[in-house]
Amino acid sequence: MTASHEHIRLYIDAPLGAGAPLSLAREQAHYLRNVMRREVGDTLGLFNGRDGEWRAVIETIGKQGCTVAPLEQIRPQTGTPDLWLICALIKRARLEMVAEKAAELGVREIHPVITEFTHSPPMKAERLAAITIEAAEQCGLLSIPALCAPEKLQTILGRWPSERKILFCDESGAGHTALAALQATEPGPWAVLIGPEGGFSPAERARLLSMPQTLAISLGPRILRADTAAIAALTLWQSVRGDWQASPVALADQSV
Amino acid sequence: MTASHEHIRLYIDAPLGAGAPLSLAREQAHYLRNVMRREVGDTLGLFNGRDGEWRAVIETIGKQGCTVAPLEQIRPQTGTPDLWLICALIKRARLEMVAEKAAELGVREIHPVITEFTHSPPMKAERLAAITIEAAEQCGLLSIPALCAPEKLQTILGRWPSERKILFCDESGAGHTALAALQATEPGPWAVLIGPEGGFSPAERARLLSMPQTLAISLGPRILRADTAAIAALTLWQSVRGDWQASPVALADQSV
Repeated sequence: MTASHEHIRLYIDAPLGAGAPLSLAREQAHYLRNVMRREVGDTLGLFNGRDGEWRAVIETIGKQGCTVAPLEQIRPQTGTPDLWLICALIKRARLEMVAEKAAELGVREIHPVITEFTHSPPMKAERLAAITIEAAEQCGLLSIPALCAPEKLQTILGRWPSERKILFCDESGAGHTALAALQATEPGPWAVLIGPEGGFSPAERARLLSMPQTLAISLGPRILRADTAAIAALTLWQSVRGDWQASPVALADQSV
Repeated sequence: MTASHEHIRLYIDAPLGAGAPLSLAREQAHYLRNVMRREVGDTLGLFNGRDGEWRAVIETIGKQGCTVAPLEQIRPQTGTPDLWLICALIKRARLEMVAEKAAELGVREIHPVITEFTHSPPMKAERLAAITIEAAEQCGLLSIPALCAPEKLQTILGRWPSERKILFCDESGAGHTALAALQATEPGPWAVLIGPEGGFSPAERARLLSMPQTLAISLGPRILRADTAAIAALTLWQSVRGDWQASPVALADQSV
């Protein structure tokens, strides 16, 4: 065991508990063995979004794969505030950046939507999911946003839950001042809604403004790109309605 | 003149006034002629960060270059709040993203700094400047952040202005809750300070915390990457101390 190793955390979609050995995915085994040069007896962190973070030890590692045994829970599972991100499909590189930042800033579900003015290529769901997982692994997160399949904006609005508020980033400038408007709201489930480059159509805007769940806000006097608006709105929501009152997890203090 | 053309805005580093024809840079002439297929008599917007936005008409365009004549000011110059971004050199793609977002969110000066834990490649100043200009052209901005030459963090702190406060994004988690702490401050000149991946050294942290200008804040319970922290901190500052009380410029209403 090499104590000076960089701390590795891996996401695994399996229950975590003491003594139940787990097989890692082929890419994870390759990463541990060939990239990070890990050996039998080395330890790493595992998380699955449900059971907290576990210290685990490598039991076998080779060309055939890698098995690891969880030893003890080193962090209890923490929740993510009940926030969704509804984001129009935008250019691929910008959508990937938004997915990464949504994972870091903390959202429960990402809903890509197709709007009237959307003319971006289909999203690559596997790649987007991998980006959120990598962000979680590298940033010490215990949860990963659920990435939903793209659907039309009118479809998701048609079944919108009555209790979930919508933070509608209205690039027309007619919205409320973001911070003051958010501070005047009550706690509860929310979604941040971001349109495509080019904005929402007049019909979409009218429908959103007619919904009692909608809070239309303005993000300042400069026009922001869609990806910037997404990050800014998630930041403001987490600061006012989310869990940014708490302190960061002191990852550095954890020995694995 | 083709009225259905997409609105083009170009940054030019020259005084703007009625009747003084200007030569565009070679790349801008190429862009107008070969990419956007503009012709003599077509109009565009010009801005220089000082004289507002001007409607200008193409007088000559060809292989030799392009001259344009400003016709009338269509937007008065607006200011950017007195905010600097002090950002450690981080990986190139992430630094470029931060520069783009700093332009959109509105900062006056970007100061790249080298810290004890910085181990990123030298920045490409020309490319970073081009990214801020492109963001300004595309997002309807009238100002572009000044991009300063990289220097050591201890150098810039050694001549730090007594009146300029520092919003120190302290990844140790010991900082104040960002929103509440910012709201308790007075208006005035500020800088947002972002460290490298890996954070500040203990000596750097101690020095920052010893400065009366420093306000150490925490950005929530999840560890954010440096680029995410930069965007989040700029957003919070603009919302509380900046100009996000105002409405967006209604660019769509302007005919050029």
